[in-house]
Amino acid sequence: MDHLSKLAQYFREFPGIGPRQAQRFVYFLLTRNTAYLDELSRLITEIKRSIRVCTDCFRFYPSTESSEKCSLCRNPHRDTHILMIVSRDVDLEAIEKSKVYSGYYFVLGGTVPILEKEPEKRIRLTELMKRITRGQFTEIILSLNANAEGEHTTEIVREYLGKIPQHTYTISVLGRGLSTGTELEYSDSDTIKSALKNRERV
Amino acid sequence: MDHLSKLAQYFREFPGIGPRQAQRFVYFLLTRNTAYLDELSRLITEIKRSIRVCTDCFRFYPSTESSEKCSLCRNPHRDTHILMIVSRDVDLEAIEKSKVYSGYYFVLGGTVPILEKEPEKRIRLTELMKRITRGQFTEIILSLNANAEGEHTTEIVREYLGKIPQHTYTISVLGRGLSTGTELEYSDSDTIKSALKNRERV
Amino acid sequence: MDHLSKLAQYFREFPGIGPRQAQRFVYFLLTRNTAYLDELSRLITEIKRSIRVCTDCFRFYPSTESSEKCSLCRNPHRDTHILMIVSRDVDLEAIEKSKVYSGYYFVLGGTVPILEKEPEKRIRLTELMKRITRGQFTEIILSLNANAEGEHTTEIVREYLGKIPQHTYTISVLGRGLSTGTELEYSDSDTIKSALKNRERV
Amino acid sequence: MDHLSKLAQYFREFPGIGPRQAQRFVYFLLTRNTAYLDELSRLITEIKRSIRVCTDCFRFYPSTESSEKCSLCRNPHRDTHILMIVSRDVDLEAIEKSKVYSGYYFVLGGTVPILEKEPEKRIRLTELMKRITRGQFTEIILSLNANAEGEHTTEIVREYLGKIPQHTYTISVLGRGLSTGTELEYSDSDTIKSALKNRERV
Repeated sequence: MDHLSKLAQYFREFPGIGPRQAQRFVYFLLTRNTAYLDELSRLITEIKRSIRVCTDCFRFYPSTESSEKCSLCRNPHRDTHILMIVSRDVDLEAIEKSKVYSGYYFVLGGTVPILEKEPEKRIRLTELMKRITRGQFTEIILSLNANAEGEHTTEIVREYLGKIPQHTYTISVLGRGLSTGTELEYSDSDTIKSALKNRERV
Repeated sequence: MDHLSKLAQYFREFPGIGPRQAQRFVYFLLTRNTAYLDELSRLITEIKRSIRVCTDCFRFYPSTESSEKCSLCRNPHRDTHILMIVSRDVDLEAIEKSKVYSGYYFVLGGTVPILEKEPEKRIRLTELMKRITRGQFTEIILSLNANAEGEHTTEIVREYLGKIPQHTYTISVLGRGLSTGTELEYSDSDTIKSALKNRERV
Repeated sequence: MDHLSKLAQYFREFPGIGPRQAQRFVYFLLTRNTAYLDELSRLITEIKRSIRVCTDCFRFYPSTESSEKCSLCRNPHRDTHILMIVSRDVDLEAIEKSKVYSGYYFVLGGTVPILEKEPEKRIRLTELMKRITRGQFTEIILSLNANAEGEHTTEIVREYLGKIPQHTYTISVLGRGLSTGTELEYSDSDTIKSALKNRERV
Repeated sequence: MDHLSKLAQYFREFPGIGPRQAQRFVYFLLTRNTAYLDELSRLITEIKRSIRVCTDCFRFYPSTESSEKCSLCRNPHRDTHILMIVSRDVDLEAIEKSKVYSGYYFVLGGTVPILEKEPEKRIRLTELMKRITRGQFTEIILSLNANAEGEHTTEIVREYLGKIPQHTYTISVLGRGLSTGTELEYSDSDTIKSALKNRERV
């Protein structure tokens, strides 16, 4: 296979990219100058060297920071008694942006598909166990997506956490209800049920 | 204007119908037999005679029922102490379908646009006052859409309810949080904030 | 079934309308005044009385015109030697709007699905035969959609026309090529082939 | 700016990629192994070395071929009397795939925006002149997109070709008409006009 087809094939593995757009990426790169191509190439090849994985929460952070832990895990002002478990870095970022959570995080590294027999191959269960043993958490919050795979993963982690002997933490999940923009007319019964249960005196 | 164009113009007023689809409706009707057309015509012209508006909750119900109240308001097994305020009949139906609410309803008949100076022209505030005075409610639940206009309407009704002298009911709103299908990555800070506040021990 | 559900069911038969939009149509009508409903109802019930089918081309035209033929077929300035065969009234209208055709029309009343064994039940083949026998056409143009069902119908009509004994007309089909907006990158080989064959000296 | 943000910014320049997808690309790369990253990086940085631009038609071709001309321009079995002018490599590929054209090509390298004062900065007009002078063409086919910018470019190249002194070639453009899938109901008058003009005896 020639060079351009091979490059197109690499782009096809990118999330959400079909054969046509992969081809367009290749032609786009052909029109760039050498400086652009060299820098893009360098950024890609050095991506792993440029980031580290935090030994506490497993999120990615710049390797220019000389610590073994990310800035969040090093921060002494955060609440050391709460741990929030998320699926991926993007979820952690969404929660940080909301500025309402001040505890620690743990990144599972994915979710568990419904039929997966070995969940520990998909998410960091062993590492989670170690992290919890090392900490002194009074609450662990499971913050996963409100879809089928997210709920399945929540269930697996919840069971796993329940089995840790002599644990003193409570386990909680994010509240269900109306999210911003939700219209009742198009809501399913589960959402309405939760919204009613979580109704709030005003 | 000829007959077909006139009919197309009527269809263009239907919600979500543009000129092309209005035209297609007309051609569709031309292919129907007389029995279909006559029955459709009758159903439309008699729609108002066939339904009544409940004097208690203001929802529509079949006029074949001989009472002045709809079946929900007549039902003695519902909880007489709770009133849920909704915007339209479709919202009431979505909530009934979830089978988690057993109190009474009140249909406002719409929402209040942000810049509206006279909200009582858009929603049934006077009728709401009368309904509340007549009942013995301990809780009033505001169940409006979680969008800008829904929240504006919630605010207006809440203020109005607060001014009713010597009221003994509490006022609540539907809980916010993750609705079914919500992904954290694409959630706004308000939703995440509510989801965290309404987190639930499992 | 009650009145509103019955009306919603009628609307569900409209082209492109699902259960949810049918329901919204019903609620929309509930908010209209009696004058609107009565007029809409009248327009629907009288649609067949208000239009006639032209005995020559089978298109619909207002019955207020006292002739048995539509205005196009009565027009003595049109070219009496050419007949264009279209599937539906909307196609005829699109062609009239382009102002490039001045012959007569014949409306088939539909297309023939690929597996249909009896095409004469779907399109007006017998009436077409009569129309052609009555005229003095030197050319018959088949103007059907450039999709699978349109091409299948073209083929059936072409065969049928070929069998009419001692006919003196030629048969033609609309030219294939690039239609307005077409991009070569996304064109199939058939389109490119036709565009190349029909290329034009400039 | 840190490494990941910088890489995301590079991806945002890719055609059709917004900030969110650029971010997802970065996280996707973080999950790849070093072999994948190194190979992708190499393919990008060497893309220019791996391809050449044909000195005859200006299309890209693998530099592993030791000739100065691409395989199409070297092919002695193609028709040396016809030249087809296209905008980009992707258009050339679409035409080759249709297997109906056997002459030579010339890639303009783009199109000319409507308000561009200096078209020669956008497309290879000088190079086109040289190519034509060097050849012995009896026909030049302009194969550009059937949209506003394509037609504007066609007009500019046509004028330019007309000015070449003592030329013996004819100039043609791709035929307009119904492209595959076109429905008459949704066609504009230009398309119908061309389809009628290019109608074909069957």
